[in-house]
Amino acid sequence: MSADPSLHSEEAIIQGFLAPLAAGAPGAFELKDDCATAAPSAGCEFVLKTDAIAAGVHFLATDRPEDIGWKALAVNVSDLAAKGATPVGYLMSLAFPTAPTREWMSGFASGLAQAQRAFGIHLLGGDTDRRPGPISITPAVFGEVPVGRMVRRATAQASDFVCVTGTLGDSGLGLRLQQDRTLADKWNLSAAQAKYLRIRYLRPSPRLALRDSLLRHARASMDISDGLMKDLGRMCRASGIGARIDYTSLPLSDAFKAVRNADPAAAEASLFAGDDYEILTAIPPERMPQYKAEALVAGIEVTDIGMFTVPITIQLRDSNDNEVQTSKSGWDHF
Amino acid sequence: MSADPSLHSEEAIIQGFLAPLAAGAPGAFELKDDCATAAPSAGCEFVLKTDAIAAGVHFLATDRPEDIGWKALAVNVSDLAAKGATPVGYLMSLAFPTAPTREWMSGFASGLAQAQRAFGIHLLGGDTDRRPGPISITPAVFGEVPVGRMVRRATAQASDFVCVTGTLGDSGLGLRLQQDRTLADKWNLSAAQAKYLRIRYLRPSPRLALRDSLLRHARASMDISDGLMKDLGRMCRASGIGARIDYTSLPLSDAFKAVRNADPAAAEASLFAGDDYEILTAIPPERMPQYKAEALVAGIEVTDIGMFTVPITIQLRDSNDNEVQTSKSGWDHF
Repeated sequence: MSADPSLHSEEAIIQGFLAPLAAGAPGAFELKDDCATAAPSAGCEFVLKTDAIAAGVHFLATDRPEDIGWKALAVNVSDLAAKGATPVGYLMSLAFPTAPTREWMSGFASGLAQAQRAFGIHLLGGDTDRRPGPISITPAVFGEVPVGRMVRRATAQASDFVCVTGTLGDSGLGLRLQQDRTLADKWNLSAAQAKYLRIRYLRPSPRLALRDSLLRHARASMDISDGLMKDLGRMCRASGIGARIDYTSLPLSDAFKAVRNADPAAAEASLFAGDDYEILTAIPPERMPQYKAEALVAGIEVTDIGMFTVPITIQLRDSNDNEVQTSKSGWDHF
Repeated sequence: MSADPSLHSEEAIIQGFLAPLAAGAPGAFELKDDCATAAPSAGCEFVLKTDAIAAGVHFLATDRPEDIGWKALAVNVSDLAAKGATPVGYLMSLAFPTAPTREWMSGFASGLAQAQRAFGIHLLGGDTDRRPGPISITPAVFGEVPVGRMVRRATAQASDFVCVTGTLGDSGLGLRLQQDRTLADKWNLSAAQAKYLRIRYLRPSPRLALRDSLLRHARASMDISDGLMKDLGRMCRASGIGARIDYTSLPLSDAFKAVRNADPAAAEASLFAGDDYEILTAIPPERMPQYKAEALVAGIEVTDIGMFTVPITIQLRDSNDNEVQTSKSGWDHF
């Protein structure tokens, strides 16, 4: 091992840290070829997605490299999960402003390895460059579904239930805590609650266990990455319909509620801030009982929070049927 | 159209400029879904590749956006061509430090459209972000080959011919000219010669016409993106063999020779500088006549420049069999 803690050659990065992530994928050729090969299983097609994450935009440069590696894969696999797809493999393009240290690469590869095991996916190839700007990680992931069965965004129908998995807003609060640990006291959080919120931000957990249920029951589905209101708007626009959401039914964690008691503005700002990586679905009414039952078995809570409607507007109503005003409509990168 | 010449929403970029590039690919869902679908033809598998290009590293920020769009796709499709694969589709992740102008996006999309038509490939999906640093374009391309037939890098054998397509070193000179137009006079180039070299840098042309011949005749193949010596070194290392190259047989364009007469140092520095996007192949001796004949029909010149050898070294020899010393061994991003 060199005394220089930084990795100054692509080859050292690839063969030292990335090639082990390709073990088990014959089409990766141990990352010693220029391209990889892959084919879907018989009767299946690939579902493809790329979503880049960059320091200062999607994660903090001070986040642990293990968490960055996990998140890079998780935010992409979350899309596959929402579409009912089984993860298969990924390419990954890396950009570093300065040569990464062995310690950083080792942590980053370890986070990727944990995510690979959790999601059942392998690295197949990639590209490593040095360029100015933040560290950027661009995975291109692919999974598989039976041909023609990918659950679409544009196929929601009026009178379908609007359902979400898990709880909303945790990740936005987790980011705040990650930036300023003293907020935990200000928000009267227990150590466990603070940790829970930070983990929700650092380690999004794609809802893969719901995959088969989505294929069976969901009329439309997408993951919530830019905040409920913005992503619901996208589903409504694509489907040519609207939605009416019951604000009081939004699923919230105990930790979120604790913050809301102590600092309502912070909670409100985080609720629709993005990075939830939960799944938004349109479920036909007759499918709801079975969908909920299967989700329960899978260990994932699903909540119906409203209904898709013919009028093309999104209404957020409180328990008195009054419209709720909210300042945040979601995250736009521009 | 807004009076603001910049594009401040992802939606405006996607639906205004990128969605037309997805027309003709049903699995792209008009870029209105979160994921795309694709499956290889019967009997085929996908060949996958991602290679990012960034301003200041792989292109000049002042290059025309048409040329940048073309190049982003061409450098990736060049890998598919070298592997014997037929291009099918691509995802593309875009990063902008500031909102792009309508004019820039329009030119960029036009260059992509030209490349799509030339290579027979469609946009299937992607991701657009704003972040500091240079404009970065990260395509992830896929093509198809008959199952198990991708032409590998690691399969060259001693006594195979070392062959290259086209001519070497043009692109390195083209980059110099693009940075400093006055060099054309210093190098005594005609306007046509100067333009030729600049186009070789701006508009690499993947050698797709050679695809079927590679599948039939090549024992190993890869594209030359980081310079002949570096990429040949990679093929030799992967194959566990060496090579002996006849320096005087390297194929050079008339424009390159003109520069060499006027400025030998500039020519020498460019010869192995990278960005050639020609194809390096290992051709078994008995296959050479047929390979050359087919290439001629395809309109692509192939030149045998040496031989793979048992000794694991790369020797560069002149016509008197003396070793040639060269300062450039290729491009490493670190």
